[in-house]
Amino acid sequence: MSVHQPLAIGIDIGGTGTKFGIVDRDGNVLFSGEMSTKKHKEIEGFIDELDGHLGELIEKAGGIGRIRGIGVGAPNGNFYTGTIEYAPNLPWSGIIPIAKMMSDKFQLPVTLTNDANAAAIGEMMYGAAKGMRDFIMITLGTGVGSGIVANGQLIYGHDGFAGELGHTVVIPDGRMHQGTGKRGSLESYASATGVRLTALEMLENSTEDSLLRAADKDTLDSKVVYDAAIKGDKLALEIFEFTGKILGMALANAIMFSSPEAIILFGGLTKSGDLILKPTRKHMEENLIQVFQNKVKILVSHLKESDAAILGASALAWDKQ
Amino acid sequence: MSVHQPLAIGIDIGGTGTKFGIVDRDGNVLFSGEMSTKKHKEIEGFIDELDGHLGELIEKAGGIGRIRGIGVGAPNGNFYTGTIEYAPNLPWSGIIPIAKMMSDKFQLPVTLTNDANAAAIGEMMYGAAKGMRDFIMITLGTGVGSGIVANGQLIYGHDGFAGELGHTVVIPDGRMHQGTGKRGSLESYASATGVRLTALEMLENSTEDSLLRAADKDTLDSKVVYDAAIKGDKLALEIFEFTGKILGMALANAIMFSSPEAIILFGGLTKSGDLILKPTRKHMEENLIQVFQNKVKILVSHLKESDAAILGASALAWDKQ
Repeated sequence: MSVHQPLAIGIDIGGTGTKFGIVDRDGNVLFSGEMSTKKHKEIEGFIDELDGHLGELIEKAGGIGRIRGIGVGAPNGNFYTGTIEYAPNLPWSGIIPIAKMMSDKFQLPVTLTNDANAAAIGEMMYGAAKGMRDFIMITLGTGVGSGIVANGQLIYGHDGFAGELGHTVVIPDGRMHQGTGKRGSLESYASATGVRLTALEMLENSTEDSLLRAADKDTLDSKVVYDAAIKGDKLALEIFEFTGKILGMALANAIMFSSPEAIILFGGLTKSGDLILKPTRKHMEENLIQVFQNKVKILVSHLKESDAAILGASALAWDKQ
Repeated sequence: MSVHQPLAIGIDIGGTGTKFGIVDRDGNVLFSGEMSTKKHKEIEGFIDELDGHLGELIEKAGGIGRIRGIGVGAPNGNFYTGTIEYAPNLPWSGIIPIAKMMSDKFQLPVTLTNDANAAAIGEMMYGAAKGMRDFIMITLGTGVGSGIVANGQLIYGHDGFAGELGHTVVIPDGRMHQGTGKRGSLESYASATGVRLTALEMLENSTEDSLLRAADKDTLDSKVVYDAAIKGDKLALEIFEFTGKILGMALANAIMFSSPEAIILFGGLTKSGDLILKPTRKHMEENLIQVFQNKVKILVSHLKESDAAILGASALAWDKQ
């Protein structure tokens, strides 16, 4: 790495943790770190801790003079205003002017967007969506995020909040979302939280024998369900089938809306591989009208999970040049 | 009108009828006409009849030398390929190379798109969406069509078929759509056909007294339901409430996807005014997460229904210049 090469900082704020890194123009994450989001009830404390971590990384990278700017991906992050607004999965309520707070603190230009939009930019620049002009990025993590690219451009919408596919209603009057108070959203079913709730519900409502009955209810998550499913556990397989049915229907709806070349999936749930992908594909195709059938690819991001969000966020900083 | 002013032809092909007209650059429909789509089981006969009608209009307008081109809006019309593909509401099955067939016949350049996309272009050039960069056009006619504009551009998707909001699933395992064989689509509920089916179902499943019980079942349509509802008929009001509940939910989902400034409604169902708009707005807001609430306008197209589709289609011909 040349001492003169400019660098950018990418920050990915998630409901649980925040990842950050220093990235070069070729998409190499040179230095990176992680901290808790959840424990900071106050945004000020969060930014103070982040400042400490970034300071160390910037020093290692050769000083602040090499850093062109900071890109931030966050749930409900608004590209136009630089504010995080009413993010149901973050500890800070209301409207947080995070871009301004960060640029005041770090003395660098800060660009903000929705975390899934940042991931979509990362995939378009460095990942599975390279060269695509129409695709949808869907992140299946603690929540469900999405970034929509059409005509080669990220869709921000009139107010900067486009791409909240996770909050679209898939089951009318369905499961209550604790963060939003709304019923039946995709996120209530196809997120890590959703899979856990499905598992708990199915265990409660069935008397079927299952490896999951031995699991600790507090730590029961999609990994535990996965481990049971690969051993052939019927209930665990049903959980994936149910999740894939809902996710597949939501993907079909998204396809009929913006007709992408591919849907790129990313995040914890994709680690379950075909257990989740097979039912998802099947139900997606079943819900598509003929003109859309058998032509939209479902791809799993091949970027390292820890890097992808940082890469995407950092790309925002280059864009701003 | 100057004898030298160039003109364009706009054609709107619907499941029941086809409208066509000759339009100047300012959006004045100078001459127009209408014919049946439904009665033509063969596309060749349809084009022959259309050729006869257009010939007369072109003569009136001063001859073919003044016509710059033809724009066509049709269900499942593909902008990229000029073909109508597997349109469930048209009498012609499979893939119809209609742009080529028309340009061979009429000896004029022909541009095709989805009927709702054409309507969106019409609204953007001459109607309620003038000056907007992000909006969704939804046509509530025999079927439900949509055209999505983001960043000031119509979203065609990778294959030219974006905007099929009418076929998105709103009620999983819901009502069967006769044309597509799929269950629970928006079109099965929020179209003229859908309202009729809801009315027939409600009459069947309830014993409640209603003015609709006296109606002829074969001609029972949203107009009949409207006439009963304004007289305070409880069942008729329930039909609008039910339709608005589903339409409102679908609008909320579309908003959370592309975050438009406004949704522009067009077509027969909008003639019921507040009877359909009030429950639609209410359920739309109820299903939106906070960040989207109370900021997206629902507007009813103020273009003359007979003109709007022709105007939008004709705009395609100017675009091609």
